[in-house]
Amino acid sequence: MDTQQFREFGKAAVDYIADYFETIRDRNVLPSVEPGYLKNEIPEIAPVSGEPWQKILPDVDRVVLPGLTHWHSPHFHAYFPTANSFPGVVGELFLSGLGSVSTDWQSNPACVELEVRMMDWLAKMLGLPEHFLNESEGPGGGVIQNAASESTLVGLLSGKQRTVRNVLEMNQNLTSEEVKEKLVAYTSKESNSSVEKASLLASVPMRLLPTDSDCRLRGDVLQEAIKKDKAEGLIPCCVVASLGTTGTCAFDDLEEIGRICRKEKMWLHVDAAYAGAALVCPEYRYLLNGIEYVDSFNFNPHKWFLTNSDCSAMWFKNTKDAEAAFKLKATIPSQPLFEPEIQHWQIPTTRRFRALKLWFVMRIYGVEGIQKHIRHQVSLAKYLEKLVRKDDRFELLISSLGVVGFRLEGDDTLTQKLLDKIAERKNLFIMPYYYQNKLMVRFVVCSRLTEVIDIDYAWNEIKSIVDDLEKNSKQEDEKTAIDSSILSRGALNSLTPDLNDKLNLGLFL
Amino acid sequence: MDTQQFREFGKAAVDYIADYFETIRDRNVLPSVEPGYLKNEIPEIAPVSGEPWQKILPDVDRVVLPGLTHWHSPHFHAYFPTANSFPGVVGELFLSGLGSVSTDWQSNPACVELEVRMMDWLAKMLGLPEHFLNESEGPGGGVIQNAASESTLVGLLSGKQRTVRNVLEMNQNLTSEEVKEKLVAYTSKESNSSVEKASLLASVPMRLLPTDSDCRLRGDVLQEAIKKDKAEGLIPCCVVASLGTTGTCAFDDLEEIGRICRKEKMWLHVDAAYAGAALVCPEYRYLLNGIEYVDSFNFNPHKWFLTNSDCSAMWFKNTKDAEAAFKLKATIPSQPLFEPEIQHWQIPTTRRFRALKLWFVMRIYGVEGIQKHIRHQVSLAKYLEKLVRKDDRFELLISSLGVVGFRLEGDDTLTQKLLDKIAERKNLFIMPYYYQNKLMVRFVVCSRLTEVIDIDYAWNEIKSIVDDLEKNSKQEDEKTAIDSSILSRGALNSLTPDLNDKLNLGLFL
Repeated sequence: MDTQQFREFGKAAVDYIADYFETIRDRNVLPSVEPGYLKNEIPEIAPVSGEPWQKILPDVDRVVLPGLTHWHSPHFHAYFPTANSFPGVVGELFLSGLGSVSTDWQSNPACVELEVRMMDWLAKMLGLPEHFLNESEGPGGGVIQNAASESTLVGLLSGKQRTVRNVLEMNQNLTSEEVKEKLVAYTSKESNSSVEKASLLASVPMRLLPTDSDCRLRGDVLQEAIKKDKAEGLIPCCVVASLGTTGTCAFDDLEEIGRICRKEKMWLHVDAAYAGAALVCPEYRYLLNGIEYVDSFNFNPHKWFLTNSDCSAMWFKNTKDAEAAFKLKATIPSQPLFEPEIQHWQIPTTRRFRALKLWFVMRIYGVEGIQKHIRHQVSLAKYLEKLVRKDDRFELLISSLGVVGFRLEGDDTLTQKLLDKIAERKNLFIMPYYYQNKLMVRFVVCSRLTEVIDIDYAWNEIKSIVDDLEKNSKQEDEKTAIDSSILSRGALNSLTPDLNDKLNLGLFL
Repeated sequence: MDTQQFREFGKAAVDYIADYFETIRDRNVLPSVEPGYLKNEIPEIAPVSGEPWQKILPDVDRVVLPGLTHWHSPHFHAYFPTANSFPGVVGELFLSGLGSVSTDWQSNPACVELEVRMMDWLAKMLGLPEHFLNESEGPGGGVIQNAASESTLVGLLSGKQRTVRNVLEMNQNLTSEEVKEKLVAYTSKESNSSVEKASLLASVPMRLLPTDSDCRLRGDVLQEAIKKDKAEGLIPCCVVASLGTTGTCAFDDLEEIGRICRKEKMWLHVDAAYAGAALVCPEYRYLLNGIEYVDSFNFNPHKWFLTNSDCSAMWFKNTKDAEAAFKLKATIPSQPLFEPEIQHWQIPTTRRFRALKLWFVMRIYGVEGIQKHIRHQVSLAKYLEKLVRKDDRFELLISSLGVVGFRLEGDDTLTQKLLDKIAERKNLFIMPYYYQNKLMVRFVVCSRLTEVIDIDYAWNEIKSIVDDLEKNSKQEDEKTAIDSSILSRGALNSLTPDLNDKLNLGLFL
């Protein structure tokens, strides 16, 4: 493919994407294909001879679109927002077009220096403390990771390494293996399942602690767990706190937890994957109370901050702790040409030029544009909250930022039927969640295209299903039985509270 | 930004990228900026109000381009190829434009099913054994990871988990903690530094074994190391073998190593990050001798296979081993709607729709197109090899696929001066390497734009530097002293053999 063909193919792709967004509201958010549908749509082997690009776009229409879940449909209310914006898309096009990656500064000065600067722009926009900035005097700094899962793992490994070092300093007759096998970490049972996965990968057992009635991890529960573990000779090393839990967007008590972490010399990692973006609005900064205790902080611009995947932002109070865990001894040069050396704070060795898309997004939206986006989405959630409150068949359980949880009064049966029917009709994509042992409809304002008319559409869809259910339930109960094989396709098959963990998995981007 | 503005901005970006590639040969491959150059080029904070997109492209020119290393310049001969092709760029544009990600099948059928099929296309193109295919009857399968570093970590954790399970089955009075602390893994000292990093993250000590004179890990050395460790009560669990080492593109003896792994019940992971792409040509399939012993195999389409970052392909002989290490118990549903469940073979929870770009690349190039690319790049390396051989001032050390290593006769002084001068002039980007304790020029054919004229250009540059060095050395030795602060910028400052590890870091994408 020569540059002329690239110009044609690239521009046709831009138009395809623009057309897709102009018509996305008309599509069912969920596809109707059967499992294995794609097998018969494309050959079993790659073509021997190359094909013209003109054959590709019709095949995207024929093969991909029918099986695609429209994550940016205004009727997508599952999981969390997955950022997509036009400046973000062009940023991604640009960075892959230049195709310029980096390891250390020498390998690509622009790539490293723009990331260092963009992470500072971002920290300042969120009101994070000065000590997290790359430009600060101290050892703090920020870097772009692939995913929150990876950030949690990096935080946990840094905390593990720091604790081992601290304990060995105090007890010179222990070996590092002896310390490692005694380590234990803590999180709440409401934290994302990727936290548990990180503990599996890092070989540090993770206690899933109970929360208060608002799904928040509190200091007394944590202190009790630590006390019990220490009595058994274990060594607490890390807490992963959530600002905005996956299920109900609850906020762990950072001040209570932080004070304990400081006292016990434990690493405190904060997972604010979704809710962190709200900090761009000063009215949400109170959520940062206790931030002074935090060792590492993560939020995903690729969730609610309009920056296409992948882009997960992570800051450290002391990057030397990460370097101690990740930097191989042989790699220590006498005097680096440029600091910070962000390549030592991550798992992969190289990095794509992701800072470019952050730069595009922050400039084209501006601080005000992103604030407007957040406030608009919260206002849509509040609008839905009002609709729920006005209908006394429904019980409102939670409303936090863009997440609204509600259910039908009574036991879970009716709410389960509502969820099943929503999944069957495929006009909305909504996930269930268990809150205080009650099944609820977990509704999230996700797409940046969602407007008041879409909330009305969703609410009308929900109400009309409930109307039908009530009518049918009065007339002939047996006819409402629904083919469970169809229902399960929406991942809404009968759930028990224990299965929230499974749902969590899907809720983490 | 509305869709109309996106059409304009997107198409302007396509033209920018096309123009960039049309003029890339005219630019110095290495930038000339000072460390910290970007600080004064852009503000310290994000703009409050949004800016028009028209302001962005001139700033890419003004701020980014001067500090950019041109990784796709035909004069870039450092590290390894970093894939960039027009079908790959449009694929990346498309997948970020649709912005559709996936967790399990329910979340996005097209995204999951296309990846499953593309990994089979790829395995068949490379001539990998049937048992790695997703479509095979058995438990084998393939998935796209972010990076080879991540694939190595996933392989190592899978092997760790399998060994713990095996040992516990045989010794029911041991605890899993007792087994874990006895585990040990092996690789060669020529393997990429990310292998050592993976061992750090997975908490499994990694022995860096010596190689034979061709930089290959051999069975006798491995067997000896295992014997010694077992005598000390340790439990060997994993070998990471390289097909195409980072420094000299050497191939570990897979048959010898594989037989030992089978006998000792150890996991065998193969890192073929760069060289794996050559398997698309049948004449290189002999490199797979011993593949029947391999548990996990990784190569990076984002290196030599024309698919833009990130795209690292990984296959398992038995995916249940990976699931045992990565799948949380709570996430096991009674009966999945679609298999394989590739989301359980990776660290992050969600995946971008990277299969789209693989589909675009394999269709637009076709098998023949990719074969032609590989053969052409190897032929250019052979062409350089001939030029080196013809000039008796030079000693050819290695020539393997697209990697050529040579030096000036005599001690390292002259070769060091040559490397320093290359870095100072910035017309070529080449890395040094130590081979059998001799400093060499490690020259790699990287860019898909490199042609015979560029090899001639490089060779003339090298020869003219050597001519100057010889002339100067005869006339006045002291004048050849070069400001070391300039030289170090090319990462070519005085090296010792031990520092190959540091170089390795940068050589892994």
